[in-house]
Amino acid sequence: MTSPRIEPVGPISGQDLPRYAGYSTFARLPRADEVSHVGVGILGVPFDAGVTYRPGARFGPGHIRQASRVLRPYNPELGVDPFRSMQVADCGDVGCNPFAIGEALGQIERAADSHLSAGTRLVVLGGDHTVALPVLRSIAKQYGPVAVVHFDAHLDTWDTYFGEAYTHGTPFRRASEEGLIDRQASVHIGTRGPIYSAVDLSADRELGFIPIHAREFTRTPLDRIIDRVLERVGSRPVYVSVDIDVLDPAHAPGTGTPEPGGLTSRELLEMIRSFSQARLVSADIVEVSPAYDHAEITALAASSVAYELLSVMACTPR
Amino acid sequence: MTSPRIEPVGPISGQDLPRYAGYSTFARLPRADEVSHVGVGILGVPFDAGVTYRPGARFGPGHIRQASRVLRPYNPELGVDPFRSMQVADCGDVGCNPFAIGEALGQIERAADSHLSAGTRLVVLGGDHTVALPVLRSIAKQYGPVAVVHFDAHLDTWDTYFGEAYTHGTPFRRASEEGLIDRQASVHIGTRGPIYSAVDLSADRELGFIPIHAREFTRTPLDRIIDRVLERVGSRPVYVSVDIDVLDPAHAPGTGTPEPGGLTSRELLEMIRSFSQARLVSADIVEVSPAYDHAEITALAASSVAYELLSVMACTPR
Amino acid sequence: MTSPRIEPVGPISGQDLPRYAGYSTFARLPRADEVSHVGVGILGVPFDAGVTYRPGARFGPGHIRQASRVLRPYNPELGVDPFRSMQVADCGDVGCNPFAIGEALGQIERAADSHLSAGTRLVVLGGDHTVALPVLRSIAKQYGPVAVVHFDAHLDTWDTYFGEAYTHGTPFRRASEEGLIDRQASVHIGTRGPIYSAVDLSADRELGFIPIHAREFTRTPLDRIIDRVLERVGSRPVYVSVDIDVLDPAHAPGTGTPEPGGLTSRELLEMIRSFSQARLVSADIVEVSPAYDHAEITALAASSVAYELLSVMACTPR
Amino acid sequence: MTSPRIEPVGPISGQDLPRYAGYSTFARLPRADEVSHVGVGILGVPFDAGVTYRPGARFGPGHIRQASRVLRPYNPELGVDPFRSMQVADCGDVGCNPFAIGEALGQIERAADSHLSAGTRLVVLGGDHTVALPVLRSIAKQYGPVAVVHFDAHLDTWDTYFGEAYTHGTPFRRASEEGLIDRQASVHIGTRGPIYSAVDLSADRELGFIPIHAREFTRTPLDRIIDRVLERVGSRPVYVSVDIDVLDPAHAPGTGTPEPGGLTSRELLEMIRSFSQARLVSADIVEVSPAYDHAEITALAASSVAYELLSVMACTPR
Amino acid sequence: MTSPRIEPVGPISGQDLPRYAGYSTFARLPRADEVSHVGVGILGVPFDAGVTYRPGARFGPGHIRQASRVLRPYNPELGVDPFRSMQVADCGDVGCNPFAIGEALGQIERAADSHLSAGTRLVVLGGDHTVALPVLRSIAKQYGPVAVVHFDAHLDTWDTYFGEAYTHGTPFRRASEEGLIDRQASVHIGTRGPIYSAVDLSADRELGFIPIHAREFTRTPLDRIIDRVLERVGSRPVYVSVDIDVLDPAHAPGTGTPEPGGLTSRELLEMIRSFSQARLVSADIVEVSPAYDHAEITALAASSVAYELLSVMACTPR
Amino acid sequence: MTSPRIEPVGPISGQDLPRYAGYSTFARLPRADEVSHVGVGILGVPFDAGVTYRPGARFGPGHIRQASRVLRPYNPELGVDPFRSMQVADCGDVGCNPFAIGEALGQIERAADSHLSAGTRLVVLGGDHTVALPVLRSIAKQYGPVAVVHFDAHLDTWDTYFGEAYTHGTPFRRASEEGLIDRQASVHIGTRGPIYSAVDLSADRELGFIPIHAREFTRTPLDRIIDRVLERVGSRPVYVSVDIDVLDPAHAPGTGTPEPGGLTSRELLEMIRSFSQARLVSADIVEVSPAYDHAEITALAASSVAYELLSVMACTPR
Repeated sequence: MTSPRIEPVGPISGQDLPRYAGYSTFARLPRADEVSHVGVGILGVPFDAGVTYRPGARFGPGHIRQASRVLRPYNPELGVDPFRSMQVADCGDVGCNPFAIGEALGQIERAADSHLSAGTRLVVLGGDHTVALPVLRSIAKQYGPVAVVHFDAHLDTWDTYFGEAYTHGTPFRRASEEGLIDRQASVHIGTRGPIYSAVDLSADRELGFIPIHAREFTRTPLDRIIDRVLERVGSRPVYVSVDIDVLDPAHAPGTGTPEPGGLTSRELLEMIRSFSQARLVSADIVEVSPAYDHAEITALAASSVAYELLSVMACTPR
Repeated sequence: MTSPRIEPVGPISGQDLPRYAGYSTFARLPRADEVSHVGVGILGVPFDAGVTYRPGARFGPGHIRQASRVLRPYNPELGVDPFRSMQVADCGDVGCNPFAIGEALGQIERAADSHLSAGTRLVVLGGDHTVALPVLRSIAKQYGPVAVVHFDAHLDTWDTYFGEAYTHGTPFRRASEEGLIDRQASVHIGTRGPIYSAVDLSADRELGFIPIHAREFTRTPLDRIIDRVLERVGSRPVYVSVDIDVLDPAHAPGTGTPEPGGLTSRELLEMIRSFSQARLVSADIVEVSPAYDHAEITALAASSVAYELLSVMACTPR
Repeated sequence: MTSPRIEPVGPISGQDLPRYAGYSTFARLPRADEVSHVGVGILGVPFDAGVTYRPGARFGPGHIRQASRVLRPYNPELGVDPFRSMQVADCGDVGCNPFAIGEALGQIERAADSHLSAGTRLVVLGGDHTVALPVLRSIAKQYGPVAVVHFDAHLDTWDTYFGEAYTHGTPFRRASEEGLIDRQASVHIGTRGPIYSAVDLSADRELGFIPIHAREFTRTPLDRIIDRVLERVGSRPVYVSVDIDVLDPAHAPGTGTPEPGGLTSRELLEMIRSFSQARLVSADIVEVSPAYDHAEITALAASSVAYELLSVMACTPR
Repeated sequence: MTSPRIEPVGPISGQDLPRYAGYSTFARLPRADEVSHVGVGILGVPFDAGVTYRPGARFGPGHIRQASRVLRPYNPELGVDPFRSMQVADCGDVGCNPFAIGEALGQIERAADSHLSAGTRLVVLGGDHTVALPVLRSIAKQYGPVAVVHFDAHLDTWDTYFGEAYTHGTPFRRASEEGLIDRQASVHIGTRGPIYSAVDLSADRELGFIPIHAREFTRTPLDRIIDRVLERVGSRPVYVSVDIDVLDPAHAPGTGTPEPGGLTSRELLEMIRSFSQARLVSADIVEVSPAYDHAEITALAASSVAYELLSVMACTPR
Repeated sequence: MTSPRIEPVGPISGQDLPRYAGYSTFARLPRADEVSHVGVGILGVPFDAGVTYRPGARFGPGHIRQASRVLRPYNPELGVDPFRSMQVADCGDVGCNPFAIGEALGQIERAADSHLSAGTRLVVLGGDHTVALPVLRSIAKQYGPVAVVHFDAHLDTWDTYFGEAYTHGTPFRRASEEGLIDRQASVHIGTRGPIYSAVDLSADRELGFIPIHAREFTRTPLDRIIDRVLERVGSRPVYVSVDIDVLDPAHAPGTGTPEPGGLTSRELLEMIRSFSQARLVSADIVEVSPAYDHAEITALAASSVAYELLSVMACTPR
Repeated sequence: MTSPRIEPVGPISGQDLPRYAGYSTFARLPRADEVSHVGVGILGVPFDAGVTYRPGARFGPGHIRQASRVLRPYNPELGVDPFRSMQVADCGDVGCNPFAIGEALGQIERAADSHLSAGTRLVVLGGDHTVALPVLRSIAKQYGPVAVVHFDAHLDTWDTYFGEAYTHGTPFRRASEEGLIDRQASVHIGTRGPIYSAVDLSADRELGFIPIHAREFTRTPLDRIIDRVLERVGSRPVYVSVDIDVLDPAHAPGTGTPEPGGLTSRELLEMIRSFSQARLVSADIVEVSPAYDHAEITALAASSVAYELLSVMACTPR
C-alpha cells in the first residue's frame, strides 16, 4: 500500500482530559472501530476457566487498561514513539464462554484470525494462559511455526489436569504437538520452583524449549542472557508470551500461582526491550488477577510490558 | 438403633490448644474418619466453575473453616450444645473437576449420597450456588421433594447463560423442573436488585417460590416474616440454602455478586434460629469468595450461620 | 414531540459479552455519541480539589462505572425498565482543571449546560461535593430555583475554609446565596456528627434547609420520613444530591470524611425510590473515593443509587 | 473551687492547620502537660498481652487518635461543646510491660490513680479488655463500687485461660470478686454468640450483671432498652466500658474476636448519648486492633464513642 | 536400620483433590499420626508473646501451611524429591501458653524433645523468634553445640527488654550463654538497619557470630558469600534459623519488624539451597505475621524456604 | 559557637515506653519547641494539591512518622549515632493552604526560612514534589545555587499542566529557571518510563541535569554510579530530593505515580549513605501516599531514607 500515509490517531492528551478521567481504552488510545486501519491491536481476552488455583484473571484486561492510563507516548530507552510510528488501537474484549473451554478457544481463535488476517499484529491481554493456544493457532496460519519466547515461572507444558487437555498449564505442549511452535527456537525464561518430576524437564525439551532458570539472573549478566535468547530465535518470527508470574510475587502479587524467587520488573522490561533486535509478530500478557493485586502494582507491570512490546513492534517490521 | 449412646466427640478445647492453633476442621471438630458415626457432617464443596461474575468461591470451605475456630460450644439463644447433642464431624472436601460442570455435579451428588444414605444430615460449605443442585438431587432421594428456604439477593431461577444450563444462577429452576422441590412450600428470602425482566418473577412463582424482598425487612417486624416462612414450610422436610450475598455487602463483602440493600447478620441469624420450629433435613452456605473478604468478616458470618444451622438440627429430629 | 418513537439503545447483553468484559460505560450503556438523542445522561466529574480531608474522589466516576457492570435492566421494586423507557447514555467525563477550582467550576457548568439545554436530564457522578454547585447553576437556568434533597452526613453549608469560598463543604450555602435553591423546599437527610457550633444549624435553616438527622431513622418509621420529605418538596422540580457518606462507614468506607452512625444502603435505596412520586430533574452522587473502598462495596452502593435515580426518572416526566 | 474560671484550651483549629496535619493528640487537643488542670483526660493503654485470639490492640490508642482528627467541637445531638465546657487533654500512653501481665496491671492502675486522684475523669483508650480491671481498681478507690455498663459481644466474666486469671476474658469477674462493682446495678449490652456452657450465664448473674442480648435490638424499641439501662444504674456512679466488638463486624472489623449479629454504630452512639442522664465517672474503649481495620472505620467508630462519652461528661458533674 | 525400606507417604495428589481443597497440612502431607515413622517433621509453634512491636505471628503456622498447598514434589534445582526420599509429615502445632513465656518455652522444648529424640529432624514454623531458644535447647541435647546460620535483619542477641530475658530479640544471646551454639561457627546473614549502639556488634561477636550485612549482597557475588558461610560452618551440625524479615519488606510485608534494604526471595532461596553441602540437623522459619501479609506473598516465601530446607535435608544425612 | 556543648536530647527509649506507644514525633525525638537549639529539623509539609494522578501525599508526613517509631539510634553502616552527634528534632507540619498552590508555596518557603536562617538543616517530609521548590528557594537564600541530587522515576522538569506552572511535575524546571540550582552539578537518579517526547530530555539537560537511568543499575556496579554522582556534585552544597517513586512499586506501592523497573530499597539506601562524602545541606522525601501503601512498607522505606540522610548530616558539617 503506497497510499499517502495517514497520521496515526494517538492517545487522548493528558492536557485535555486528566489521566484519571475518561473511558478506559488501553493507554487512552482510540478504539479499533474509530480508526481506518489498525497496525497493532490490543485485544482483551477475559477468560479464566482454565486455571488450577486462584481464579480471577477474567478481570485482567480491564485492570491492565486502568493501569495503562499513566503511559506517556515516548519511549526513551528505545528512542521511539509507538503511537506515532504506527496505528495502535484497542480492539476490545473477546466475548468468550466462561463455562466451556473448547468453545471459548474457538471464539478466541476466530477473533485473533479476524485481526491477524487483516495485517494487524496483536498484543493480547489475558485472561489465563490457556488463551495463548488459540492465539498461536491463529498466528501459525499467518506465519507458520513461530519461535515462542515464554516468560513464566512455570513450564506450561504439562499434559492434562482432571482429564482436561486444555488448561493454563498446557498451552505450549498442545501448541508444540499441533506444530505451531518452532522446536529449534523456543525458550522459557524465568522458570523456577518445584515441578512434578524430573520427567517434566526432559519432556519439555522434546517439545522444543530450552529453559533459562530464574536463578541464572542472579549469576549471569543480563546481556549474556539476552544474547542467548536472541541467538536462539534468530531471524524467525517471534511470539512473546508473558505470564506475569515470571515476576517475583513482590512485583506481581496479583496473579494465580505466584512463585517466589522471580524476576524483578527491571529485569523483565530490559528483556522485553531486547526484542527490538528480533522479529516480533505478536505477543500476550496473561495471568493478571486483580483481586490479589495491591495498589495496581501488578497491572502497572503488565501495562509497562505491553508498552515495551508495542515499542518493540514500532522498531521492527511485521 | 437402641445401642447405648456414645458420647459425641466434641471440638478440641481452647484450654488445651489455643483457638488460633491446630489443624483447621470446622469448629475444630473431629474428622468424619475419626468417629464411628456422624449425625451431622460438614461437607466442603470447593467448586466455582459455575459463576458468572467474580470467581473464587473454590477457596470458600477453607476460609469458613478458618473463621470457625472461634466458635464456642453452647448456644444460649437456642439453649443447646450442638456438639454434645449429636455427633458433628468434618467430612472434608469433595474433590470435584474444576473444568467440567457436569462431571463435578456427579461427583458432588455421589459424595452427598454417601453421607445422606448413612443417615447423616449435611451442612454443605460452598463453593458457588451451582452446588445446591446435586445436593438437592441427593436430598430428594431420601426425602422426596423438599421445601426449599432460599436466602439470597437473587432468584437463581434463571434458565441458561452462554448456553449453559447448570450455573450458579440456575440451581432452583433445574431443581424445580426435576421435581426436587415442593412447589407449595418454597420461598426466597432477601431478594432485591434489578433483574432481567418482569417475566423472571412470574416464572419464578411457577417454579414454586414466593419471594420475601429485602425491603420488607425495613417495614415488617421480623417475627411476622418468620411466621410467614414457617407457615409456608409447615411440617415438610426443609432444606435451607444460604447464599451469603443475602447479607448486605457491608456484612459480606467477600462474595461474587454483592448487592446493596441486604440483610444484616443480626437479621439473618435470627431467621436461621427460627427453624428450630421446623424440620431441617440439610442445608448449605455458599458463595463465600475469600479474595474479596476483609478481616474474615464474611467467613465469620458464614461460620455463624453454619453454627446456628447445627444448633437448629440439634433441636429437631432428622 | 410526536415523531415515531425510536427504541432506546440498551446495555450490551451479558449473554453476548460477559459482565466482567468490555469497555466500562455506566451499566454498559451506549456512549452519548453513539445515540441520536439522550434522555438521561450519566456525566462523570472527576474533580476533587475541593476536599478538606481524604482526597481521591477524582477516581470516583471510573470506579462507579466499574461497579455498574452488574446492573441488570428491570427494576422490580418500581416496576420499570429505565433503559427501555428512555434513552440513557454515558456522557463521559468533564475534563476539568485539577489545580484551579474556579476554572473547574466553569468547565463543569458549561458541560452541564450543553446537556441540560438539549433536554437531557443528568445523573452526575462525582468527584467531590464541590461539583454540585456548578450543576445547580446550570439546573437553575433551566428550572429556576429547585428543591434540593441532600443526602449527607454533613450540612455542606459552611462558609469558607482557608479563605476559599468554593469547597466540598460549601456548595449549598453558595447555591442558596445565588438563588439556585428553593428555600421553602430543601432538606438534608442523614445529618449527624459534631459540627463547629450551634450557629451552623441556625445558619443552615436560613439558607433554606431542614435537617432530618440520621438518628431519626432509628426511631421513626421509614415511611413517615419519606412522607415528610415528599411533603416538603411537593410538586416542585427536585434535585437530589447524594453524598455517599450519608451511608454508615460500614456501607461506604470509600469516602473522604466518613461519619459513624449513618444510614444503611437498604434505607437509602428505599428513600431514593420514593422520589418516583416527585418531579426529579437531575441528581448527583458524589464523594466516592476508591482508594479507601473495599471489594467495591462503596461503588456498588453508588451505582445502585444511580440506577434507582434512573428508574425514578423513568417513572416521571422531565 | 470558686476561682475565676480559666477558659479551656481547645483543639487546634482546622482553619490554622488542616485536620490531616500536625501531631496526633486525641481530637488535636492539648497534651496534659500543656494545661494547668485536666477535667477529663484521654489516656492510652497500649497493652494487648491479655488477648486469646487476634492480637494487635497495642496499636489501638494511636489508631483511634489518628481517626479523631476529624472530630469537630460542637455536639448537636446533646447540645454541648465538650471542649469548651471543661478542659479535655490527652494524657499520652501508659508505658506498660508487654511481657508480664501482673506488672502491667500495676503500671496501669498507678497511672489511673495519678489522674483520678487529681480529680480528673478518664476516657481510657485500649488496649485489650484486660485494662478495664486496673482502671476499675483505681475508680473504686475514688468512688467505691460502681455500676458498670459493659458494651461487648462477650460476657468477659470467664475465670481462667491457660491458668491465667488476668486476661481480656476475665476483667469483670475479677472486678466483681474484688468488690469493685455494684452487683445490683451492672449490665452487659450487646451480648451474643456461643459461650462455653449455660453455667456461664448463671455465674455471670451472680457476679452482678444482667445481659441485654444483641438480638433484643431487633425487636425492642431503642428507647425502651435505654430506659431499662438507666433504671438499673439509677443515680449511682457509672463506669462505661465499650469493647468495640459490641458493634457488628461490618461496623468494626478491626478487633480481636469479632462476632456477627452485633449493634450498628448508630445504635451504639445513641446508647452512649443516653448517659447524659446518668452519672458517668469514667469510661474505656477497648479492643481496637488496627491491623484488621479497613479505611479506619473501626477507629472512627471508637473515636466517635469517645467523643460522645466526653459530651456526656460535659453534661453531668463528676 | 537395615529393615526393608517403607515407601514414604507423599502429599495428596492435585489430580485427586485440587490444591485449593482439603485439610491444610503442610504441602498436603500426611499428619505424623498417620505414618509409622517421621524422618522430618513440620512442627508449628503458634507463639508470639515475645514480640516487641507488631504481634500476630501466632497465626503464622496456619498461614504458611495454607500457602504450602501449591508446592509440587520435585526440586529441579537440587535434583531431589524430598517427599519420596524420606518421610516428611506434619506434626501439628505445639499447644503453648500465650501468657507465660517461661512456661511456653518449656512446652516447646518438650515437644521438640519428643520428636528429635525419636530421630526426627524438624522444620519449625513460628511463631516469633523466641521459639528458636527452646528448639536449640532440644537440639543441643542431641547434637551438642551447633553452628547456627541465622538469616535475619536483626542480630537477636540483645539482652533484656522491660526486664524480660526471653523475648524475640534475645534467643541467640541466651543460646550462646547456655552453650547451645558453636561460637566458632555461627553467622548472621542479612543484618541491616540501625541498632542501639556500637557495643551491640562487639557483644555479638563474643557470643560467637560473624555478621554478613545485607549490603554485601549488592557488591559481592552470591557464590562468594555462600562459600564464606559454608567454610565457617564446615562439617559441624548446622541449625538454620530464618527470620522472614531477612527478606526486604517488598518480599515479606507480613512480619513484625520489617526493615528496608533486605534480601530478595531469589537470593534467600539460593542461599538455602547451598546447605545441601552442609550437615543440616534442623531449622526454623519464624516471624510470619499474616495480618500484615498481602496475597500470601510472605507465606509463599516462607513455605518455599521450608521446601528448600526439606530438599536440603533430603540431600544430606541426619 | 564555642559555648559548652549541650548533650542533644535523644529519642524516648523503648525500654521506658514501647515503640508502639506514645505520641508520634519522627523517631520519637523531641519536638523543636522542647529543645533550645535544633541542628537538624524534621519538617512535615502535608500538601498534595500539585499532583496530577493519585492524590493523598497530604497524609505522608504522619504516615512516615508512624513508621519511624522503629528506628533505633546507632547506624552501623556509617558508624554514627545521629541523635547524639547533633540535636535532631521534629518541627511539626507546615499549615499550608490546600486550595491555592501559590499561597501554599509562600507558606512553605517562610517555614523553611525560619528554620534555615537559624542554622538548622532540614529533612522535609512531603507532601507531593511541588514542595521541593519553596524549600529550594529558601535553601538558595542561604547557600546560593546548590547541586541537586534528585532521586525519582520522573524528570520533574516539565513545564505546565492545565496551564499551571507550579505542580509536582515542574519543581526542578522552575528551580533551574529561578537560578536556585547549580546547572553544572545536578543529577537525576532512577529515571525511567515513557515521557512526552525526546525534547523532554534535551530540555532537561539544558536545565542542568544529567540523568542516571534506572536500567543502569542492572548493568553498572553500584560503586561506579556512586562515584559518578559524587564527582558531579564535588564539594558544592548538595540538596538531595527523594521522590519515593524512585523505588520500584514492589518497594513503594504507596505513591502517586508508580513506575515499574525501579530501584530496590537496598540500592537506594546505599546511594544515600554515599553522601557522607559530600556536603549535604538539606533534603526532602516526598510523594508517600498512605492510602496506597501496604503494611507501611513505603513509609518504612521513607523513614529509613530520612534516617540515612540524618546520619549523613551527622558525618558532615553544615
